[in-house]
Amino acid sequence: MTLYPIASHCSAFICPRAASTSPFGTLRCRITFMTGSGAGRFTMTDEGTGAGLWLIGLGPGDLGMMSADAIERARGCEYRFLEGYTATLPEEEESRLESVVGRWERVMRPMVENPEKILARAKETSVALLVVGDPMQATTHIDLESRCSEQGINFSIIPGISATSLAISVSGMQSYRFGRQVTLPFAYGEYLPTSPLELIDSNFVNNLHTLVLLDLDPTGMGVESPQPMSPSQAVDILQKMFEKMVRNEGFVRESMSDPIGSWDGILLSDLGTREQRVVSGKLEELSTVTGGRIHCLILPALFTGMEREAYERRRPHR
Amino acid sequence: MTLYPIASHCSAFICPRAASTSPFGTLRCRITFMTGSGAGRFTMTDEGTGAGLWLIGLGPGDLGMMSADAIERARGCEYRFLEGYTATLPEEEESRLESVVGRWERVMRPMVENPEKILARAKETSVALLVVGDPMQATTHIDLESRCSEQGINFSIIPGISATSLAISVSGMQSYRFGRQVTLPFAYGEYLPTSPLELIDSNFVNNLHTLVLLDLDPTGMGVESPQPMSPSQAVDILQKMFEKMVRNEGFVRESMSDPIGSWDGILLSDLGTREQRVVSGKLEELSTVTGGRIHCLILPALFTGMEREAYERRRPHR
Repeated sequence: MTLYPIASHCSAFICPRAASTSPFGTLRCRITFMTGSGAGRFTMTDEGTGAGLWLIGLGPGDLGMMSADAIERARGCEYRFLEGYTATLPEEEESRLESVVGRWERVMRPMVENPEKILARAKETSVALLVVGDPMQATTHIDLESRCSEQGINFSIIPGISATSLAISVSGMQSYRFGRQVTLPFAYGEYLPTSPLELIDSNFVNNLHTLVLLDLDPTGMGVESPQPMSPSQAVDILQKMFEKMVRNEGFVRESMSDPIGSWDGILLSDLGTREQRVVSGKLEELSTVTGGRIHCLILPALFTGMEREAYERRRPHR
Repeated sequence: MTLYPIASHCSAFICPRAASTSPFGTLRCRITFMTGSGAGRFTMTDEGTGAGLWLIGLGPGDLGMMSADAIERARGCEYRFLEGYTATLPEEEESRLESVVGRWERVMRPMVENPEKILARAKETSVALLVVGDPMQATTHIDLESRCSEQGINFSIIPGISATSLAISVSGMQSYRFGRQVTLPFAYGEYLPTSPLELIDSNFVNNLHTLVLLDLDPTGMGVESPQPMSPSQAVDILQKMFEKMVRNEGFVRESMSDPIGSWDGILLSDLGTREQRVVSGKLEELSTVTGGRIHCLILPALFTGMEREAYERRRPHR
């Protein structure tokens, strides 16, 4: 078993030290916190799971992608909360979550961003916050590390496979050729930022691929169930951003002289679930793809090495 | 169980379709290949694991990070090879690999890059190629997808947690603020490329963090056991690259006017193993860190949000 203690007495080194003889071994574990000064150690031997907050990655959808550690640790906790707003599990997986880890309760954004209740409980006993994907690839959970550190609450991360990492893996593109990733937001009323398309263009000009995450939450508030952006909405939003950029700048950038519909793209739908689909093609083709729940797009720069072939192998109608 | 079939009759859609009621359930699985045209489907119901090549991610070191699917699939294969050159398991984990997945045999770079023997066997029966980390975050394995596609061999990927994803998670930096990742190579004789430092600088100028992977293989051939670069070697190589850049360019770039030893860095050692350590500090401090097997570095751009605090929490002597 591997833990990532970041307790207040462990501010400098984040060092899992735990004994386990089998991935499905006993819950008996030894956690050694190494102090920042390197002078002392605090060792805890425990039959179960001690008090603290365990941030546990569920992986991108199919619970079969949970690690052995994640399953064991989630089962061992006294309380389990499912963070329900940065991403959600497919219905079928959510319904079998209890059989995998035990009883759980859903928490939405307000309770995670104002986590007094969760932290008060984590002071007394073991609390798991289950997060779809990897718990630290989202933007909000570093906040929990900080609060736990301030309040002297044990804090540990059990990583999960992130859809962003999986997207790169199954695309066939080379991981070191990706620039900064971009989230494509819904338009809020009349407001549509052009910065996502500018970042995509900046990657392209530097000959880097872009992973484009399609927004899940038209409200931006994280209080309701996500309503993921469809491929046709995404291409439409890119087109509107392009038109606004041209209006703002007064000319068409040379790197964007081809119509957006003719750009190459790789559409990744329902990554890491049984419904996963990977389809490449021109954006005008991809915009006609229907079905699927959650999508992301890769907008490739120039292909190198075996990338062109990988792209062609993912085309439906070559 | 989730599979990623990319067989020749499945060139376009890469869509796992499999039934499993428990992460440790039976090996009975149903794999549906959706054809490129969308017209037909090929469904295979199998008591065991069919012929083909399974590329299986072991995660970054501790076998407890293997997914339930990866364990189940590796156990179900007739032959198991451990790819032993892009990364290696800690000794203790390697010695318990057999108890987790069954008997295995090591393969080095020449046999993976000229995989006729492996593929001939995969035509007849189920073959697992076990890869530390995620099998598609390295550069060479897309080649296997291509060869399997040409030869009509079933090819599937079971993803793993990649150290590159884990590095970002445990650093406390925000994932969407990373630019292109960089590998820092050993100098080969007199030859030292400056492009890695140029890429780091380009990310920095664009206010993006850089994940710097330290090279493992001084020979560049992948035939011997890796000899990972130490933190002091890495800082030394960065310094030499800087000096060569200044000689080549005839001036010091403004973005690089601070001495390299004074740059902020986050050193991540033995990620995903029981020995994992995360330490932040100036590069001159980090260069004195000893111990550990495999290291990588994050060179942050300007901190935003809670990143500064996360950096400070990882400093040994604040």
